[in-house]
Amino acid sequence: MNYQRFFDEAIDQLHAERRYRVFADLERIVGAFPKARWRADGEAREITVWCSNDYLGMGQHPDVIKAMQDTAAGMGSGAGGTRNISGTTHPLVQLEDELADLHGKEAGLVFTSGFVSNEAAISTIGRLLPNCLILSDELNHASMIEGVRRSGAEKKIFRHNDVAHLEMLLQQAGRERAKLIVFESVYSMDGDIAPIAAIADLAEKYNAMTYIDEVHAVGMYGARGGGITEREGLSHRIDVIEGTLAKAFGTLGGYITGTRSVVDAVRSYAPGFIFTTALPPAIAAAAVTSIRHLKSSQVERDAQQRQAQATKDILSASALPVMPSETHIVPILVGDPELCKMATDRLLAKHGIYIQPINYPTVPRGTERLRVTPTPLHDDSLIETLRDALVETWTALGIPFRDDSAPVEPVASDRVVPLLVAKSGG
Amino acid sequence: MNYQRFFDEAIDQLHAERRYRVFADLERIVGAFPKARWRADGEAREITVWCSNDYLGMGQHPDVIKAMQDTAAGMGSGAGGTRNISGTTHPLVQLEDELADLHGKEAGLVFTSGFVSNEAAISTIGRLLPNCLILSDELNHASMIEGVRRSGAEKKIFRHNDVAHLEMLLQQAGRERAKLIVFESVYSMDGDIAPIAAIADLAEKYNAMTYIDEVHAVGMYGARGGGITEREGLSHRIDVIEGTLAKAFGTLGGYITGTRSVVDAVRSYAPGFIFTTALPPAIAAAAVTSIRHLKSSQVERDAQQRQAQATKDILSASALPVMPSETHIVPILVGDPELCKMATDRLLAKHGIYIQPINYPTVPRGTERLRVTPTPLHDDSLIETLRDALVETWTALGIPFRDDSAPVEPVASDRVVPLLVAKSGG
Repeated sequence: MNYQRFFDEAIDQLHAERRYRVFADLERIVGAFPKARWRADGEAREITVWCSNDYLGMGQHPDVIKAMQDTAAGMGSGAGGTRNISGTTHPLVQLEDELADLHGKEAGLVFTSGFVSNEAAISTIGRLLPNCLILSDELNHASMIEGVRRSGAEKKIFRHNDVAHLEMLLQQAGRERAKLIVFESVYSMDGDIAPIAAIADLAEKYNAMTYIDEVHAVGMYGARGGGITEREGLSHRIDVIEGTLAKAFGTLGGYITGTRSVVDAVRSYAPGFIFTTALPPAIAAAAVTSIRHLKSSQVERDAQQRQAQATKDILSASALPVMPSETHIVPILVGDPELCKMATDRLLAKHGIYIQPINYPTVPRGTERLRVTPTPLHDDSLIETLRDALVETWTALGIPFRDDSAPVEPVASDRVVPLLVAKSGG
Repeated sequence: MNYQRFFDEAIDQLHAERRYRVFADLERIVGAFPKARWRADGEAREITVWCSNDYLGMGQHPDVIKAMQDTAAGMGSGAGGTRNISGTTHPLVQLEDELADLHGKEAGLVFTSGFVSNEAAISTIGRLLPNCLILSDELNHASMIEGVRRSGAEKKIFRHNDVAHLEMLLQQAGRERAKLIVFESVYSMDGDIAPIAAIADLAEKYNAMTYIDEVHAVGMYGARGGGITEREGLSHRIDVIEGTLAKAFGTLGGYITGTRSVVDAVRSYAPGFIFTTALPPAIAAAAVTSIRHLKSSQVERDAQQRQAQATKDILSASALPVMPSETHIVPILVGDPELCKMATDRLLAKHGIYIQPINYPTVPRGTERLRVTPTPLHDDSLIETLRDALVETWTALGIPFRDDSAPVEPVASDRVVPLLVAKSGG
């Protein structure tokens, strides 16, 4: 075994398959979001980021930054230990109270990332419940899939958002067996929304626990930013609501909320939680400030929805193949991995526009796309610049525009291209 | 299945087994470390933290805090995305360069926690290498054990720091088979050090890869804080050096360093890395500042070693059962889980001293202990206060003092109580 050669070849293979990822070196600029400095080949250029998950621009909110600075000044740069060993700082305690309140739950628990929160919570609940059957939507995020795997529980995958299929699986399992349904509210690659009420009905009918991932919805939907479950008045019908602090709230970390007992069980039994240094108090304080702001301010949510709709409208009007989406996420179909990569390279180099190519395995082959996330800070003129750059790129590379000869529903209904043919994952 | 009752009972059981953990609500005070405000029952009291992993007090260093504040002001509170999707900020790129330099390696890769870095790196390397055999020290940390498990590779556990046993296992596997030896430099519960040179010799002889966890050593050992491998001139003989930013460097996150290919392979193939929001630029900048400071400043390391030795000496002189330790970690034997918990409760309530009880499964039954970590900021008078509080507590609860009738080696050699009888883990 020649280890060096082995790893060299593993990397060569990624290059050969065009799956090698180069991370863009960016420096975001407070006061100028969504602009950033991009460093490449020894030069720095100002570019526009069109794929940020800082969905509302809260990462540059003056109150949020001030909370971070003040708390660093008072309590230091780190937590100094695991939650159990001197790392439970007061801002973290406040943050968990704030999150429980956000979702109308008894308790909250914060993790260092959304990935870890899903992995730790799902695996722990699935492992603790005797003979648990986990029912998992086929398009669930990698972190949920890891949680399901690591629970050691039996799992069944239900077709994406397909309640009839889910009911069939629940029926087979029977009322008595422990069952956990895990799903997302907003699926981030297509921007579609789960039938939460129908899933809650089934959970009640067949006595199943429910676990929802709201990472692409918290802060952005519901009167206080409690996500789709809040918007639809369903929070109380879902057992565990999981979310992130690293997207709309603009900071770092993930969390779960639920009854005191469930949260306490995860807290007590999950190794990925117990043996990890706690989030710094400055991060926790910044998150508290961001959540509190979005509980009372509707301005950011309204502006995001308005600019997302404007983006869909303006791009569609130029026959760009905007894919159906019920949310702030705007996918644009390319349909080929090479072209997808070439398009984003060209957008960056020629137009100073940064969007990541989304290729297999993140989405099914043949549905490769750009995924655009307009924030309140992407104004109409930036959208028009984006449209011009996309039209130039589509034309130069010969990427298909929307086929207007095919029967197409009106733009307002967000059905510009046919639904995806194949889905994978789960 | 009554889910609520089930989780209620799971928590009741922890209480019944005295394994229920209550996290102390602390507020560290910059300028007054190791003091902190402790909130309980609606009151706040000032206490002294004696179990922090902010080993050198860098979490309150003015330059580190300033770097965090300035970067938050300039780039915002969060990264805004995964590493691949707009989250690779310039300070993070600098941080990875700084870490590679720290360990004399070609490349570095940062994760959101040390737990995730071990889990992701070990599982990815073990999974990529064909038919890999992982050889793992029996006292390795939970995060390494998770990494080994998730690699899917065959594993063999070698007795703690036992090179003869390790050689036997290597011999059985033969030179041709891919082999990965995973171990720690400093084991944090006993404070002992691995025979790194001997393990490197064996790795060379039998053609194995080596992976060392230096989380309890980076910043604190070696002329530039490169850990025990630097102190012993062995960095170049270990393939992957893993460390943390959340202990001696006073911030948050974990990392690996190694050849470009190995690091690139982990970067490209580990789902726990790809699908996680990047560390905020402000955290990365704080970490860079801390690492740079400790590369050139020896003051903190000297003071830590001096105060750790003073703690061992002063406690031992009062016949407190200080356990053998070659490092800054000072374990004090209690030997009973109930007494251990009672002792720490009493220390906090009566003496304002915060130390966590370390019970099974973190350490073997019968070796329950307090684990004290003196920092440069724990001055002699704090050590004397600690001694008085421990003596009072030991006397009040009837915990055994050191048995001076048994033959005991001198304090200087750090062999005050017999070595542990049983070890677990792996």
